[in-house]
Amino acid sequence: MIIDRLFEVVADRGPVCVGLDTSPQLLPETLTFSPPPSSAILEFNRRVIDATYDLVACYKVQIAHYEALGVDGLSSYRDTLMYARSKGAVIIGDVKRGDIASTGEMYAKAHFAGDFEADFITVNPYMGSDIIAPYAPYLRTGNKGLFVLIKTSNPSAHDVQDLSIGDQPVFMHIAELVRNWGKEYRGECGYSLIGGVVGATTRQQLAQIRKAFPTLFLLVPGYGAQGGGGKDVSPAFIDGNGAVVNASRSILGAHRSKPNGEKRYAEYAREAVIAMREDIRQWMG
Amino acid sequence: MIIDRLFEVVADRGPVCVGLDTSPQLLPETLTFSPPPSSAILEFNRRVIDATYDLVACYKVQIAHYEALGVDGLSSYRDTLMYARSKGAVIIGDVKRGDIASTGEMYAKAHFAGDFEADFITVNPYMGSDIIAPYAPYLRTGNKGLFVLIKTSNPSAHDVQDLSIGDQPVFMHIAELVRNWGKEYRGECGYSLIGGVVGATTRQQLAQIRKAFPTLFLLVPGYGAQGGGGKDVSPAFIDGNGAVVNASRSILGAHRSKPNGEKRYAEYAREAVIAMREDIRQWMG
Repeated sequence: MIIDRLFEVVADRGPVCVGLDTSPQLLPETLTFSPPPSSAILEFNRRVIDATYDLVACYKVQIAHYEALGVDGLSSYRDTLMYARSKGAVIIGDVKRGDIASTGEMYAKAHFAGDFEADFITVNPYMGSDIIAPYAPYLRTGNKGLFVLIKTSNPSAHDVQDLSIGDQPVFMHIAELVRNWGKEYRGECGYSLIGGVVGATTRQQLAQIRKAFPTLFLLVPGYGAQGGGGKDVSPAFIDGNGAVVNASRSILGAHRSKPNGEKRYAEYAREAVIAMREDIRQWMG
Repeated sequence: MIIDRLFEVVADRGPVCVGLDTSPQLLPETLTFSPPPSSAILEFNRRVIDATYDLVACYKVQIAHYEALGVDGLSSYRDTLMYARSKGAVIIGDVKRGDIASTGEMYAKAHFAGDFEADFITVNPYMGSDIIAPYAPYLRTGNKGLFVLIKTSNPSAHDVQDLSIGDQPVFMHIAELVRNWGKEYRGECGYSLIGGVVGATTRQQLAQIRKAFPTLFLLVPGYGAQGGGGKDVSPAFIDGNGAVVNASRSILGAHRSKPNGEKRYAEYAREAVIAMREDIRQWMG
């Protein structure tokens, strides 16, 4: 199962997930001169993947950054996924789609087969259990998995996710749904193919979710540029596994204001991954 | 403001929104023989638009059906939007994106400018108020608007949307947030650029939301194939305006099992639009 593979990779290489949220602003100037921007982005991603794939658990590719460049941008999204796959990397398509019936089936087809095939995708739970059914045929193969938004790291997440349902917040209720959806998809490692997204900026809530739902593999965004550090993400782990931690700008933009950063951006990305891995390890206990 | 334009179109032509959820299965066989499928889809959409644009309030284009065909499919999404715009139609990009900060900005850029430009897009509120900020620069121009998911028409919507927050369900709480987000974007017609999506299969809840939030323009999916009829959608209207009602399969697939359906699919789509408009009108009172 793909979740067992992710578990093994985390055991071998640590829990760093590099977010390929590659916007034109992050590119070194030497690259931005070659039009169209999507070619430069692809070139940048390839070099960052080459420099980091032996150190990371997975790559998370945020489709919004590619969608913003239109059809051309989406062809670099496709090519980025293909390149990362060719290196044997586990890939999370950060698409946050969550829809029902025939629409859900179309999203499943889009992101688990064909041009945009990823190993995992992120989904939004607002429409309830019906969002899972379209993905079920892919989950049953064991080769595909989901990360459902549970608690996001943005300040206004509380508008919806922290509302009280009886004696518990919405996000705990969602976590319970996610646990139930994933019961039939448990891997040998004990975790389910259906995991959750829980932001790094809410340490206490991360601990609360981890403790209550030990079979949920967690995708933890918000490390680095969004303010979370190794200490903040530490509650996500059980014996050093069970979670991956995503950082994007702090890795892709590590070259900025560094000596020769424009040429050596991939090396700086690698250094940033190593530093992040150490930062997380020291708090794992 | 674009909401005033939508209001005027509904007053002139009625509230039918044609959902261009064009999957290869809906195409007449005469078209499916011309590869790639995306060209056939574009050809089909063009003819349906030609046959209906003088009768409809707007088109809602469900991006999932195009995304499922990869980069090539997304080029027909782009070309479908462009074609509908060239006919002067109001367009809703049904993308259900809802994200924060730089990711949200990228989605706003993707769907309010460039290849995938629409007049309105649908957004998912699970991440809270932060999802609105990235769209604000576009809303301020008056030329762009949002429809936020409030209450969807699928059976398991109750998993999340019907949970009780104190004495009211989550969906009423979301509707209140949406109303507040839209306060500063009210058009001359009285409705805001930020409206809501409320399914047609929950007549009572539709009436409840309509009554409590008279400034929300509503996008009502679920007519036809999903089970809702003219009676079910009638509570969405105030004096015959304030909402558009979407139908997809019942219009795009109207040609199936009809005489000469394979050649006359656009005529049958037009007939289905007229019948739907009458069905809605008779219940408007």
